[in-house]
Amino acid sequence: MRVLVVHGPNLNLLGEREPEIYGRQTLADIDAAITALGRELSIDVRTVQLSSEGAIIDALHSARTDCDAVLINPGAYTHYSYAIADAIAGIAIPVIEVHLSNVHAREEFRRKSVIAPVCAGSVGGFGVNSYLLALRAAALLV
Amino acid sequence: MRVLVVHGPNLNLLGEREPEIYGRQTLADIDAAITALGRELSIDVRTVQLSSEGAIIDALHSARTDCDAVLINPGAYTHYSYAIADAIAGIAIPVIEVHLSNVHAREEFRRKSVIAPVCAGSVGGFGVNSYLLALRAAALLV
Amino acid sequence: MRVLVVHGPNLNLLGEREPEIYGRQTLADIDAAITALGRELSIDVRTVQLSSEGAIIDALHSARTDCDAVLINPGAYTHYSYAIADAIAGIAIPVIEVHLSNVHAREEFRRKSVIAPVCAGSVGGFGVNSYLLALRAAALLV
Amino acid sequence: MRVLVVHGPNLNLLGEREPEIYGRQTLADIDAAITALGRELSIDVRTVQLSSEGAIIDALHSARTDCDAVLINPGAYTHYSYAIADAIAGIAIPVIEVHLSNVHAREEFRRKSVIAPVCAGSVGGFGVNSYLLALRAAALLV
Amino acid sequence: MRVLVVHGPNLNLLGEREPEIYGRQTLADIDAAITALGRELSIDVRTVQLSSEGAIIDALHSARTDCDAVLINPGAYTHYSYAIADAIAGIAIPVIEVHLSNVHAREEFRRKSVIAPVCAGSVGGFGVNSYLLALRAAALLV
Amino acid sequence: MRVLVVHGPNLNLLGEREPEIYGRQTLADIDAAITALGRELSIDVRTVQLSSEGAIIDALHSARTDCDAVLINPGAYTHYSYAIADAIAGIAIPVIEVHLSNVHAREEFRRKSVIAPVCAGSVGGFGVNSYLLALRAAALLV
Amino acid sequence: MRVLVVHGPNLNLLGEREPEIYGRQTLADIDAAITALGRELSIDVRTVQLSSEGAIIDALHSARTDCDAVLINPGAYTHYSYAIADAIAGIAIPVIEVHLSNVHAREEFRRKSVIAPVCAGSVGGFGVNSYLLALRAAALLV
Amino acid sequence: MRVLVVHGPNLNLLGEREPEIYGRQTLADIDAAITALGRELSIDVRTVQLSSEGAIIDALHSARTDCDAVLINPGAYTHYSYAIADAIAGIAIPVIEVHLSNVHAREEFRRKSVIAPVCAGSVGGFGVNSYLLALRAAALLV
Amino acid sequence: MRVLVVHGPNLNLLGEREPEIYGRQTLADIDAAITALGRELSIDVRTVQLSSEGAIIDALHSARTDCDAVLINPGAYTHYSYAIADAIAGIAIPVIEVHLSNVHAREEFRRKSVIAPVCAGSVGGFGVNSYLLALRAAALLV
Amino acid sequence: MRVLVVHGPNLNLLGEREPEIYGRQTLADIDAAITALGRELSIDVRTVQLSSEGAIIDALHSARTDCDAVLINPGAYTHYSYAIADAIAGIAIPVIEVHLSNVHAREEFRRKSVIAPVCAGSVGGFGVNSYLLALRAAALLV
Amino acid sequence: MRVLVVHGPNLNLLGEREPEIYGRQTLADIDAAITALGRELSIDVRTVQLSSEGAIIDALHSARTDCDAVLINPGAYTHYSYAIADAIAGIAIPVIEVHLSNVHAREEFRRKSVIAPVCAGSVGGFGVNSYLLALRAAALLV
Amino acid sequence: MRVLVVHGPNLNLLGEREPEIYGRQTLADIDAAITALGRELSIDVRTVQLSSEGAIIDALHSARTDCDAVLINPGAYTHYSYAIADAIAGIAIPVIEVHLSNVHAREEFRRKSVIAPVCAGSVGGFGVNSYLLALRAAALLV
Repeated sequence: MRVLVVHGPNLNLLGEREPEIYGRQTLADIDAAITALGRELSIDVRTVQLSSEGAIIDALHSARTDCDAVLINPGAYTHYSYAIADAIAGIAIPVIEVHLSNVHAREEFRRKSVIAPVCAGSVGGFGVNSYLLALRAAALLV
Repeated sequence: MRVLVVHGPNLNLLGEREPEIYGRQTLADIDAAITALGRELSIDVRTVQLSSEGAIIDALHSARTDCDAVLINPGAYTHYSYAIADAIAGIAIPVIEVHLSNVHAREEFRRKSVIAPVCAGSVGGFGVNSYLLALRAAALLV
Repeated sequence: MRVLVVHGPNLNLLGEREPEIYGRQTLADIDAAITALGRELSIDVRTVQLSSEGAIIDALHSARTDCDAVLINPGAYTHYSYAIADAIAGIAIPVIEVHLSNVHAREEFRRKSVIAPVCAGSVGGFGVNSYLLALRAAALLV
Repeated sequence: MRVLVVHGPNLNLLGEREPEIYGRQTLADIDAAITALGRELSIDVRTVQLSSEGAIIDALHSARTDCDAVLINPGAYTHYSYAIADAIAGIAIPVIEVHLSNVHAREEFRRKSVIAPVCAGSVGGFGVNSYLLALRAAALLV
Repeated sequence: MRVLVVHGPNLNLLGEREPEIYGRQTLADIDAAITALGRELSIDVRTVQLSSEGAIIDALHSARTDCDAVLINPGAYTHYSYAIADAIAGIAIPVIEVHLSNVHAREEFRRKSVIAPVCAGSVGGFGVNSYLLALRAAALLV
Repeated sequence: MRVLVVHGPNLNLLGEREPEIYGRQTLADIDAAITALGRELSIDVRTVQLSSEGAIIDALHSARTDCDAVLINPGAYTHYSYAIADAIAGIAIPVIEVHLSNVHAREEFRRKSVIAPVCAGSVGGFGVNSYLLALRAAALLV
Repeated sequence: MRVLVVHGPNLNLLGEREPEIYGRQTLADIDAAITALGRELSIDVRTVQLSSEGAIIDALHSARTDCDAVLINPGAYTHYSYAIADAIAGIAIPVIEVHLSNVHAREEFRRKSVIAPVCAGSVGGFGVNSYLLALRAAALLV
Repeated sequence: MRVLVVHGPNLNLLGEREPEIYGRQTLADIDAAITALGRELSIDVRTVQLSSEGAIIDALHSARTDCDAVLINPGAYTHYSYAIADAIAGIAIPVIEVHLSNVHAREEFRRKSVIAPVCAGSVGGFGVNSYLLALRAAALLV
Repeated sequence: MRVLVVHGPNLNLLGEREPEIYGRQTLADIDAAITALGRELSIDVRTVQLSSEGAIIDALHSARTDCDAVLINPGAYTHYSYAIADAIAGIAIPVIEVHLSNVHAREEFRRKSVIAPVCAGSVGGFGVNSYLLALRAAALLV
Repeated sequence: MRVLVVHGPNLNLLGEREPEIYGRQTLADIDAAITALGRELSIDVRTVQLSSEGAIIDALHSARTDCDAVLINPGAYTHYSYAIADAIAGIAIPVIEVHLSNVHAREEFRRKSVIAPVCAGSVGGFGVNSYLLALRAAALLV
Repeated sequence: MRVLVVHGPNLNLLGEREPEIYGRQTLADIDAAITALGRELSIDVRTVQLSSEGAIIDALHSARTDCDAVLINPGAYTHYSYAIADAIAGIAIPVIEVHLSNVHAREEFRRKSVIAPVCAGSVGGFGVNSYLLALRAAALLV
Repeated sequence: MRVLVVHGPNLNLLGEREPEIYGRQTLADIDAAITALGRELSIDVRTVQLSSEGAIIDALHSARTDCDAVLINPGAYTHYSYAIADAIAGIAIPVIEVHLSNVHAREEFRRKSVIAPVCAGSVGGFGVNSYLLALRAAALLV
């Protein structure tokens, strides 16, 4: 089983950007944790961080032929990128929405997800554990 | 470690009510699965199904002194019960929001959760696995 | 044939509360009239008045196994109780929404019914006759 | 006693138009059923189908002098014809709103009735029986 | 100079319909008063009462070739008939909006006029005098 | 009979400010025209131009004891001064809203008048003639 | 193949009304162009201009038995006539929405089409060519 | 004179729940203070804390026959319980809304009170003194 | 202790203006009652009635150096004067919002207070007693 | 004459993605059909598929110097990319909006086009024929 | 060159009012800095602080004849004073909007400026430097 | 000191695109002017024009380690790119929003800036001088 993990814009600043919201772990730390759990669950995990909406769409398209599921933390694109939502709806494999923080406890605009309706499910609010739980969910879905 | 699982209104109809949305498992099946995972994780799980907003508030209040965390699937109260939200905010232990279905892919009114801002995090869209993942999250939070 | 009639919150004050809107008949008068028509139509009518949202949900659940239809006047719960709406959607028997007054001619908030979309139909504005007409409708539906 | 039944636009297509929503009965079938019940209740029923808002207004005006009540199914005019609403408010006899389908279970725009506030009451969701119940209601009102 | 006065739907009920809002004068009384003032101001006044939106549009079109101005009280069409607004915008002569009552002191929906932006001006709230003042305005405009 | 004419903020710039909207007449020209018509109608006209909301309120209060009616062009206060609206509602004499331009054909915010509901009526769109027609209306009202 | 072309209210003023928006061609010019293209494509074209919502509904009803498709430019009814939308939905043949101007580049209210959801497709912004392209589309649809 | 004091959901957590908002006094402390002032004013005070909407409705109904006034702090029900509002409107005695904190300085949803329109008056923002002032108000009202 | 009482626009009409809403007491009566209670509570009360927003702001500024608290009934400014709200926020002493009537039971626009979020608390609905209770509250706050 | 055809995000999945909405033709099939018609009309057609908003903007900029018109199907960017709209407004050549499906018959968010106001016109709902008709329109526009 | 600087309501409290937002400089400090820069740029600067909307309007009117430009920080009037906006639109000289703080980072209501559309430009967020930069802008504009 | 100037999408068309709004200077002209002022103020200015949201995010990220401040004119991204806003919030150096035109005097959608709340301040409406003033502001901030 193969799973693609897509980190959206600004997640490369993790550990540095607003640590009171996002914690002090870097993206490398998170990727290491996901990969380790992947090994434990016999899942081949590939991770990628992308700032561009178009690049995220392309990554989702590629995953449809060589992955079994996708975990995606679309960052701020969560709230307005109908183009990413269409990409998720257009590929046959399950996609799970992941958020580090509890987006509902922050600014009003973060409470609306345009991608949620086309995802299989979502996990949010548990820091790096959001990814780990979503990986377990992917293993159970496929 | 002790965790209370609160099933809100209409969840007692599971397996019978709109199975195309909620699946064919009964609430007893779900409780058995949660309890089994609890045993595996050394968590003492207590489950309760309540139709009344007031009773859910009372259950949350009780949990604050004898549980370490709560998993709550508030059913339709998710969308308007500010009283349950206040109860969650008023107790010191972490509460995790759980949904069987992907509420974002259903009616418009189900896309707003008034309890999300006061929960630690949320898991939804994975059927019974939503509860199991949330239990793992609780274990990691506490 | 058996029909449950559920009177929601504050209907016990009928005859006393705002008679210019609701008329001078008491709830006992109304129940007597419904029962009398039931006898005429060979319908076994059971009536109950409940103030609590949770209790109304429980009554609807019970009706699914021992009644053929439900008449419900949810009082103010009409306008916000998605939990009662879910209960109606979750039981297989037809449910008819009944209002004594013409709710559309009153405050703005009374113009929205969250339960209407999941009911078989509705009758409103005719005082006690709203119930009697709804009972006839139930007889025709089942 | 005399009652006018006004069928609004597109109701002439009944039995042909979207039968999964409106059923397979034609308007002639419905008129026959209403007339038959009228005879049973000693009500002289006149029915008319009109596509034009202005013609419906004129029919309502005429009814004020030679009818005791009106049943009206304004079709889509229900949702925006304040001119028909003013006509209803402007005549002294009671007018009852009738709908074949449960308009609340359909598109969002069908959930608002601009004529409801000026009608005596409404009946909807029961197919042809909506008219029959409304006729009984008219008999009781006058 | 020639002026067309268009009375919209339900104005034929004047003197009979809701006299506490519209007064006790009939439309014939009003037309007589307008005609009398027309004579005084050397204006040839023609009046017409029309229930149908299409007929009002046709009357406006005709006026563009044989009248110098139009007074229009569009009744409830004021609030939603963009088609009448387009007719007013499409003819070269000035059109004045007239209302008997102060529409702003009534229901919320009456506070929006879709025809006001394309009229030369408006007069409202003075009963029959609204027409008389508008006729004077027309005389001054042309 | 005595009538107070209140010109609100910025009307002192008339003839100079945005003449394509307000015309080239100065406020003095307008006052002269109103006074002349007043003489013709045996009305003692007093005019005042005030920039301050509080001063307009005070002027309205004074008028209640020594005037029979008020014409008011509240300028931009039309759209938000509930305090002026309360002053109008609080005095027993009739107040007529006047506008030089057709406010409905301009910016969206100018389409809402918070004072209209408490005025006797309104006249707008006819330049200086709006005042003259309103003065005639006042003569007829009192 | 037979196609009905319905021109809605105010289109009879074409060439005369607001030529900067609608161009200088008359409706007769447009009908001639459509008919000519119809001949070229072996389509029997019938055209009609109607001011009344009810008459448009009746024309649509008639077309269902003797035409293969309809082109409709509903004029301002585009924006609020749910009754015309119901007529389109109620007939089995395809209906194409046509606009001369780009309605999206004009007033805000013109950006909403209540008939678009029930049409097969739409063409707008190309003047008379909008009709010609829509006729080609109809030829391809049927 | 007898006054019922109803404390709504979560007020039993006072002194423990979010003390930076609600202060450190317990509900027992507050009840003692109210009762003491009651004694001073010769008012027989009864207090009750209820989590359930239905139970609050029942308490209000009971009060109508054996109390002279009610003080109610409906907690979060303030913002959506039209059923409690109907109960207040349905009983003849005056009801006063009380809030410990200044609800207007908190989350947006707390700025709307659905019960305010049917209460006699309201006092909020003064901690336990809100109750004491409301009790004085009740003494003056009855 | 010194307290400033600010009466906003139109309150000088008390006893005369809409007595069914505001009662028959004059402002002088109210000031006498407040002053009397002030004497009883050893509070030096100064009262002022101001029509102008700017004057109210200036009065609040002055109070910050020579008063211990302010009671303010801002009249209609309550609903839109963010400038008064800023003045309240900008002075260090507590300010209490007072209303004679229950503003929530009146027009929709009166339900929003832009000054409430920056006041210490509010009292409304009790006529002159609203001021007296607020004075007691001020005594307790300082 | 030269025309650029821009296919926006996710259109590369055509034939594979949600075929019940978009049909079974691939993008290569569509490009072949457009090119063939281009040859017939002596138009040099260039087609490009781009996932990235920035890349679409750059393509539009290039077209301004070497193309005579653009057909654009912006996919989901239709609904929020004001940056693409600015690019269209900023180039001198005509741009035509094209949609395969009838976007008005799908999700609510698809009913708003931010690019429509700056396009010359639009064609939608006819599958591949939408492009072919738009190409004919371009030929007529230039 | 002469420039008027208008400080709106509450700015006289600077250095004292909410220093965490507005800083510790007094208005005198700011005026000194602006005057100093004016000298450097050969601009004759006059400054005034006004609490009243009417007084600000009068100051703007005066400036039109004896100043070349105006800098205005309208305080809270920024958000609702259409009367000040009309005054700015009504004078021929350029007006620049200035804010000390970044109003967009504060309460929601501060994000809307009704005066911005009629100003030449705006500068905000830089404390006293906002005025200094705006003075340079004025020098460049005139 | 080093400052990065980011020009967003479509700014490369300056001098060519809608010159009545943006003026006739090219981007090269603007960059030359900024650089010249930079030299005067001893600021090392780097400028870049980017069409892609992702590229802008990457540029902002780079600037955090080698620049002291950023000037950004995000073009249309101003109005919806929460991803750019997150990038600004996520870097420690001050960012200033710049607009050539007065965005508030244009289309409604341009009045909302999603990046303003996370910027240090903003300057707009002064053409190229907006950038020059912002550069001075940057010099003062750092």
